[in-house]
Amino acid sequence: MNIWQEKADQAAALLGELKLDCWLTFVRESSTHPDPGVELVVGADVVRPSAFLFSVSGARTAIVANFDTAAVRARGVFTDVIGYDQDIRPHLLDVLHAWQPEQIGLNFSGDDVTADGLTHGMWLKLQVLLSGTPFLDRLTSADLLLRRLRGQKSASEIVRIRAAVEITEQIVAELETELRPGVSELQVADFIQQTFRRAQVTAAWPIDTCPIVNAGTESDFGHASPSATNVIQPGQLVHVDLGVRYEDYCSDLQRTWYILRADEKEAPAEIQHAAAAVADAIEAAAAALRPGAIGLDVDHAARETIVAAGYPEFMHAVGHGLGRAVHDGGTMLGPAWPCYGQMVRQRVEPGNVFTLELSVMTSAGCYGLEEDVLVTADGCEFISSYSRKLRTIAAQQ
Amino acid sequence: MNIWQEKADQAAALLGELKLDCWLTFVRESSTHPDPGVELVVGADVVRPSAFLFSVSGARTAIVANFDTAAVRARGVFTDVIGYDQDIRPHLLDVLHAWQPEQIGLNFSGDDVTADGLTHGMWLKLQVLLSGTPFLDRLTSADLLLRRLRGQKSASEIVRIRAAVEITEQIVAELETELRPGVSELQVADFIQQTFRRAQVTAAWPIDTCPIVNAGTESDFGHASPSATNVIQPGQLVHVDLGVRYEDYCSDLQRTWYILRADEKEAPAEIQHAAAAVADAIEAAAAALRPGAIGLDVDHAARETIVAAGYPEFMHAVGHGLGRAVHDGGTMLGPAWPCYGQMVRQRVEPGNVFTLELSVMTSAGCYGLEEDVLVTADGCEFISSYSRKLRTIAAQQ
Repeated sequence: MNIWQEKADQAAALLGELKLDCWLTFVRESSTHPDPGVELVVGADVVRPSAFLFSVSGARTAIVANFDTAAVRARGVFTDVIGYDQDIRPHLLDVLHAWQPEQIGLNFSGDDVTADGLTHGMWLKLQVLLSGTPFLDRLTSADLLLRRLRGQKSASEIVRIRAAVEITEQIVAELETELRPGVSELQVADFIQQTFRRAQVTAAWPIDTCPIVNAGTESDFGHASPSATNVIQPGQLVHVDLGVRYEDYCSDLQRTWYILRADEKEAPAEIQHAAAAVADAIEAAAAALRPGAIGLDVDHAARETIVAAGYPEFMHAVGHGLGRAVHDGGTMLGPAWPCYGQMVRQRVEPGNVFTLELSVMTSAGCYGLEEDVLVTADGCEFISSYSRKLRTIAAQQ
Repeated sequence: MNIWQEKADQAAALLGELKLDCWLTFVRESSTHPDPGVELVVGADVVRPSAFLFSVSGARTAIVANFDTAAVRARGVFTDVIGYDQDIRPHLLDVLHAWQPEQIGLNFSGDDVTADGLTHGMWLKLQVLLSGTPFLDRLTSADLLLRRLRGQKSASEIVRIRAAVEITEQIVAELETELRPGVSELQVADFIQQTFRRAQVTAAWPIDTCPIVNAGTESDFGHASPSATNVIQPGQLVHVDLGVRYEDYCSDLQRTWYILRADEKEAPAEIQHAAAAVADAIEAAAAALRPGAIGLDVDHAARETIVAAGYPEFMHAVGHGLGRAVHDGGTMLGPAWPCYGQMVRQRVEPGNVFTLELSVMTSAGCYGLEEDVLVTADGCEFISSYSRKLRTIAAQQ
């Protein structure tokens, strides 16, 4: 069974669970304009307006341009693949008349980008295609289906995410031997990108900010490109945020090293305090992360811990889904801010994969950690090499 | 001036020309869900809900999450880059209240996928953000702006497309030396993909169908993957459809070779007739392709020619835009079929780049040609190496 078949079976089961009798992915030019339904269960790109329909009764029908039928059939997901040349309308109406769905779930969502593939133009096009039919009033959002389908990782998906994380850990281990005073942020980034190529993986997000590299306090923080002029110096923290995409699945890690001065055997107390506080906050989130927990409660556990340690709260969610997208869909482990909408009010489910991440500023630069965790039946498992220990780079001889 | 600044200046001029007083690109997680506005004039990806506003008066304001401000500022397109942490609403309303636009053009289009970046979920989100304000009723489509901005290639865009075509022609020349009986479609595809990597370009469309390779009549035609078992034989046509992406811009070419049998000095009359008919049809389209022409008339010139030569009409448009996307937006050179909507009723403009392509079936396989052309002030220029001459591969000694 390929990964699309695996996810398609999962989608079919979710239709029953959610009492949705039809799911319709309606797309065109899907390589220009990706759609979560195409990524998860179709696995082949299409050009002309195309419809992928799942019925709660188990039927699966694809309607695509004739020159796209071979690629769609090859995936083995759809029992019925209908080709057309000029107009999708009669074929789509045939299927809907045969199935008579009471509700037709579409890929749109106000808050979850990975459940929101339907464009507004395609929504308008569907209004025209279905005008004069009873189906026009039966359109609804399939976001709950898509969020669960995206969030509940299948066995093959977990294997790939674990592999992406393991590759990233190896890259971090190689990187550690390259970090020393005089090396610029850009050189660090170049080294990492060379290892991506050697490992035959790609960056998990656009290459101009993957990795993010921050040396000391004079760096551009946030999603900024590494600097050619800002070089590592003794007494600084070097903070790296990187992720890879391996067989379509992502990792996302942050690691930080303290560069010891010639007269230092260990990092100053301020840095040790920061590292301990960040570790405590990550552990607090991990302790709260279990099936049934609400996203914002997991975030709160970390936020409360870091504030209690005397740091300002971090201005992002403590964790996001991780999968096909580095910011994957489903539940968000974040605060109740408008930018996160309903995603932080959802429950954690077994098989979810999240990041746990935060950073604090110190007089030596940014100290940040980001781990990747899998939700188990009664808690969570770190799939990255989490350690409380502050990483240090020895002073140069 | 970078390419985003060049396109932003073009967009600012188009606002005046189209009497649209505000253009709003409204996006989130743009690396997961690309938007034509972000690609063309922003040039940096963003994570949280973000707004990119152009005013007809010349003002340009970006509102993005604080950790995305550095990357957006670095492109130098927006005079004002506003960062936020929790809620975009007050900042967006501030700008709209200051500008008081009568119409706010959004990125949605019923027919043009490259003008249709706004998701239906983001449309609904905007309804909520603007509720209780006069701006809610001023939302409209910016599709005409986006189609012209996309279709009218700037000087830098044309340089890149020419380079992509030139690289592809070199790949085709190298490929020609590899074509011989016994080589499978998959081996042809592997060779081409190796040359992509050597040339440091990527495939213009997803790698499982780029290139498309068809040897003889027993191939899977359409957007299908090359076969490991279907091998080239004497007396067959080998048809290849390939394109590269170079510095974000695409080429798209089809080339066909006839594999001579041991006793043949030239291709059989049937194949020569097919090649001449395809060339005649491409030339008819090129003769009709000039500023002011309607897309469907250009298509008709080719369609009429190939039918008059005794072949069935081709089941696709004779040409599509070529640029950042291999199926780029703007005018489509196609028939009046519902799947193409209004795109075929638009006029050709100077600076448009199109493919001209069609194929016919013969008893030796598919004979297809695809050329890339630039619309000039009074006609069009082939930017690919168009030739009427049937390409042949000598019989093996």
